[in-house]
Amino acid sequence: MVQLAHVEIYTGDPDGTLWFFKDLLGLEETAREGQAVYLRAYEDWYHHSLKITEAKEPGLGHVAWRCASPEALERRVKALEFKGLGEGWIEGDLGHGPAFRFRTPDGHLMELLFEIEYYEAPLEKRSRLKNRPSKRPLRGIPVRRLDHVNCFCHEVTPNRIFFQDVLGFKLREQKVRGQEELGAWLSVSPLVHEIGLMKDSTGSRGRFHHIAYWYGYPQHLIDLADLCVEYDIRIEAGPGKHGTTQAYFMYVFEPGGTRVELFGDTGYLIFDPTWRTVVWDVSNLNDLEKSTIWFGGQLPPTFYTYGVPPV
Amino acid sequence: MVQLAHVEIYTGDPDGTLWFFKDLLGLEETAREGQAVYLRAYEDWYHHSLKITEAKEPGLGHVAWRCASPEALERRVKALEFKGLGEGWIEGDLGHGPAFRFRTPDGHLMELLFEIEYYEAPLEKRSRLKNRPSKRPLRGIPVRRLDHVNCFCHEVTPNRIFFQDVLGFKLREQKVRGQEELGAWLSVSPLVHEIGLMKDSTGSRGRFHHIAYWYGYPQHLIDLADLCVEYDIRIEAGPGKHGTTQAYFMYVFEPGGTRVELFGDTGYLIFDPTWRTVVWDVSNLNDLEKSTIWFGGQLPPTFYTYGVPPV
Amino acid sequence: MVQLAHVEIYTGDPDGTLWFFKDLLGLEETAREGQAVYLRAYEDWYHHSLKITEAKEPGLGHVAWRCASPEALERRVKALEFKGLGEGWIEGDLGHGPAFRFRTPDGHLMELLFEIEYYEAPLEKRSRLKNRPSKRPLRGIPVRRLDHVNCFCHEVTPNRIFFQDVLGFKLREQKVRGQEELGAWLSVSPLVHEIGLMKDSTGSRGRFHHIAYWYGYPQHLIDLADLCVEYDIRIEAGPGKHGTTQAYFMYVFEPGGTRVELFGDTGYLIFDPTWRTVVWDVSNLNDLEKSTIWFGGQLPPTFYTYGVPPV
Amino acid sequence: MVQLAHVEIYTGDPDGTLWFFKDLLGLEETAREGQAVYLRAYEDWYHHSLKITEAKEPGLGHVAWRCASPEALERRVKALEFKGLGEGWIEGDLGHGPAFRFRTPDGHLMELLFEIEYYEAPLEKRSRLKNRPSKRPLRGIPVRRLDHVNCFCHEVTPNRIFFQDVLGFKLREQKVRGQEELGAWLSVSPLVHEIGLMKDSTGSRGRFHHIAYWYGYPQHLIDLADLCVEYDIRIEAGPGKHGTTQAYFMYVFEPGGTRVELFGDTGYLIFDPTWRTVVWDVSNLNDLEKSTIWFGGQLPPTFYTYGVPPV
Repeated sequence: MVQLAHVEIYTGDPDGTLWFFKDLLGLEETAREGQAVYLRAYEDWYHHSLKITEAKEPGLGHVAWRCASPEALERRVKALEFKGLGEGWIEGDLGHGPAFRFRTPDGHLMELLFEIEYYEAPLEKRSRLKNRPSKRPLRGIPVRRLDHVNCFCHEVTPNRIFFQDVLGFKLREQKVRGQEELGAWLSVSPLVHEIGLMKDSTGSRGRFHHIAYWYGYPQHLIDLADLCVEYDIRIEAGPGKHGTTQAYFMYVFEPGGTRVELFGDTGYLIFDPTWRTVVWDVSNLNDLEKSTIWFGGQLPPTFYTYGVPPV
Repeated sequence: MVQLAHVEIYTGDPDGTLWFFKDLLGLEETAREGQAVYLRAYEDWYHHSLKITEAKEPGLGHVAWRCASPEALERRVKALEFKGLGEGWIEGDLGHGPAFRFRTPDGHLMELLFEIEYYEAPLEKRSRLKNRPSKRPLRGIPVRRLDHVNCFCHEVTPNRIFFQDVLGFKLREQKVRGQEELGAWLSVSPLVHEIGLMKDSTGSRGRFHHIAYWYGYPQHLIDLADLCVEYDIRIEAGPGKHGTTQAYFMYVFEPGGTRVELFGDTGYLIFDPTWRTVVWDVSNLNDLEKSTIWFGGQLPPTFYTYGVPPV
Repeated sequence: MVQLAHVEIYTGDPDGTLWFFKDLLGLEETAREGQAVYLRAYEDWYHHSLKITEAKEPGLGHVAWRCASPEALERRVKALEFKGLGEGWIEGDLGHGPAFRFRTPDGHLMELLFEIEYYEAPLEKRSRLKNRPSKRPLRGIPVRRLDHVNCFCHEVTPNRIFFQDVLGFKLREQKVRGQEELGAWLSVSPLVHEIGLMKDSTGSRGRFHHIAYWYGYPQHLIDLADLCVEYDIRIEAGPGKHGTTQAYFMYVFEPGGTRVELFGDTGYLIFDPTWRTVVWDVSNLNDLEKSTIWFGGQLPPTFYTYGVPPV
Repeated sequence: MVQLAHVEIYTGDPDGTLWFFKDLLGLEETAREGQAVYLRAYEDWYHHSLKITEAKEPGLGHVAWRCASPEALERRVKALEFKGLGEGWIEGDLGHGPAFRFRTPDGHLMELLFEIEYYEAPLEKRSRLKNRPSKRPLRGIPVRRLDHVNCFCHEVTPNRIFFQDVLGFKLREQKVRGQEELGAWLSVSPLVHEIGLMKDSTGSRGRFHHIAYWYGYPQHLIDLADLCVEYDIRIEAGPGKHGTTQAYFMYVFEPGGTRVELFGDTGYLIFDPTWRTVVWDVSNLNDLEKSTIWFGGQLPPTFYTYGVPPV
């Protein structure tokens, strides 16, 4: 498991959702088929990093992960089948080959795949910067690439263990209240997380908390905040800085109802092969006060209660 | 091989060099022994990331890499010995255990190690941000962590192959002029490079080009540029943006004579497990014009001719 | 009346207050006499922009304004005397000549002066940048210059009219609730305000709301926020962006208890000689929601209730 | 004289020029008449700040200044007529009333006016931020407002004296080589300059050096630099920081051939009513090295030789 490849979300307001991702976040439409539109950021290398599917209600379609090799894919599939969490192979989709579907213990639909289609820019979009797969667009405040996902969980622990044991993620940070696990941030790379898991305070199962795109430049978050207010995109929280992950963050709701995080810097990167998980115990005051918000306004209650349901 | 652990440089002007790294770049002195001072940035997790040793002339002491496990270390040592490039074990140094010394084909002295001492902040320097190993200092424009090194090579190719085959690095970008290899950027992580190799246009062997510390915030480069001019630190080039690596860079000379790069953003990160090396061929005009400088002033001739010698 | 020259604040914790202004905000001490310390930012041109006087309690000493010429000073003094608000001349203080003392209708002590002493940097602090009166310091996140003051008022209207009619300020923005005036932002320059007047919701008279220093660089606010949390300086609000004045702001309490605003950008500048006051009426929803906070967390109740008393 | 109101430039490539100003710099077209298109930035309050007129060659149409009152306008007109530099009244143009035409001693065509039309945003462009005359656009990296102009002069001195004596500007900074005056920066506000005058090293008369638009955010210059390279807009110099004016600058050529400066910060502001002109004498080494470039790459020869001719 090496890489978050793409995410599919459902929207009941496809026009609004597409305006948000294309005109405000600068994503490019690479394909459209049936009720689905495929999009990528200008430094995403593959065919798409986001699939938007029209539906009655917002929801998580699926999250797709790319394995390092066909062999690695095969090993993970076996592990998933052994755990009884596999749902079998699909033939593929636009932009990738066969994918193995599974569900997290909490019920989020995910896929593993290896064969993927690289995006090839048409001539007028080809960048002279050869390590950039297409020109930086002139629309909105363009995000650079897909960064991570965050899933609400009925219980964090079994899902966290699943990502560690079955899929090979490392536990980078953790939030607990005494014995209770409230959140976990896991990665398969120096990023602090490709996936965050947070306790769903409503007790629901399988809900999706957010998808995050990356800027890397703090000013871009400030710029986007300005534009969100101008163009009536609801900001839930931020710009501000988390203690956990050190992310300079902003959370907004795209018009279809999915929460989107914009990541304004790089937080910090973990190169230490013997990393000791950073544990924040909110039963002590420092960790309560500093883990969620290092600086900036507090998070509203919706952050702990609102998520979109699984398929 | 997973991580650049530390670098040792020689200086003939220890007061100047220490002022530069401590007062201007905000590094913290963690130990002093004999003619050596050990320093770390505020988000470096280990005992030190820089060892400054007093000497008659500037020079590269050594570059140390941390392996992922004792087993990985053992495997790499065997590979080095098989290649005849090993120089044997040293007992260790302040901050780490046994290290195996070797030389690159070009002659740069390097070490592999696994056992390392974590920095433990004294109470008054302990950050309430638990994923930060010490408080952000109040001095200068503090760098966050060691990022990468760059070595001049008599010939790039054999050294590049050595890092790929013997040490397991991946080739991320490459600069060529037709058949001639001018530069290579290699990494063992999603960073574009932990090591850069560049042709030494003077034909020398084993020289060191630069050590790079990371900010991640473009404004900090601008701030540091302002202070360098105020306090008479010579800026060689930048702030500007490279095409290769996409780094927002500045190069300065610390008073002892070693070139130091400050890295103002994150460039881009590589998560693709089947990454296709980005090749810039400067025999075509686009690559000539855009590979070295994407925007900003051109690099001066010293960039291609000045390096500090090996031990 | 052309320029905010300096502010005197009282502190019961002189060590804490000096640490805050010198080590964190980078101000330089230019003189010390009796219970007072005089400070300036590195782009303040005069002897001092801040006088800190030890006292039992925090409080506003005085606010000093520099007139454009001796004649202008004389005219303003006559106008003040005519209004019966003059308190007579003082001989001067370190850094300036004779000053005429007066009180605002609400009771804030202020001074008008013309003769002023320019700061002359000692050789080692002299900048090679000739339009910068001293080198940018290496301490903390140094502010560039004094920007504005904000005074709580029992009633805004008479004080606002006083600044317009007697002292020649222009009304740039205004906050009202129907017929009631809640806030006024006035300037004698293209800045939106050198002085803000806000209704004191406790009904007190003559209290001081905040002094503001200017960065002009948004990243510096983010940097300072990080350091405030590290070093236990209480952030009241921000970083965020006001609707009124468009300021990218942060409010903190210096250890002596005075609120200090840090101004991270330039807001906007007014060059229009026939400027039409921007009026925000918080009895309508847009203005209620967007005037105080354009983006960022909401202001806490203390913002409307806490101020330091007059002498 | 209080305010730079607008500038008219000629272009032989109207499509290219309009793409540059509208799609890349985010200006809005407010009117089109005959061969002319009128544009404004999103924080420009008047009908237009730029008039682009199709012509065979690039050139300066005129520079328009708005006086503080009808009386002030009348006084300046008399002074101009007394100097014999007046060319008489024109009836007006789209967006403003009667204007008095004159030429600088060097021959640049300019206008003085008072009556002006404010821009009124249509409903869908109206910002909820009441001190912003229209929504921040979603195109390119939008500039905020017109900032200043810079004119090449056969001889600086008579033109500088003209702006001081006849039009009431103050001399803020000056560049000399011994007795020879090479540059002058003058303003009627706390800005360091609304107009710069620089010696034309080709000895030509009446040429225009550049028009400058303001960002105020350094990151936006970096962003624009990135886009200029992507979309083949020629960058002449920068991003870098001038010593004179402290501007964080970038110079580019719009496709029609006029040099445009983008101003990334606010430089510094002058509130001192007894400001002592900052003089840089490039016959000494510090001033030679630090006046033009404080940091960043050096300016190319074109900067001193290329300008567009007067009408």
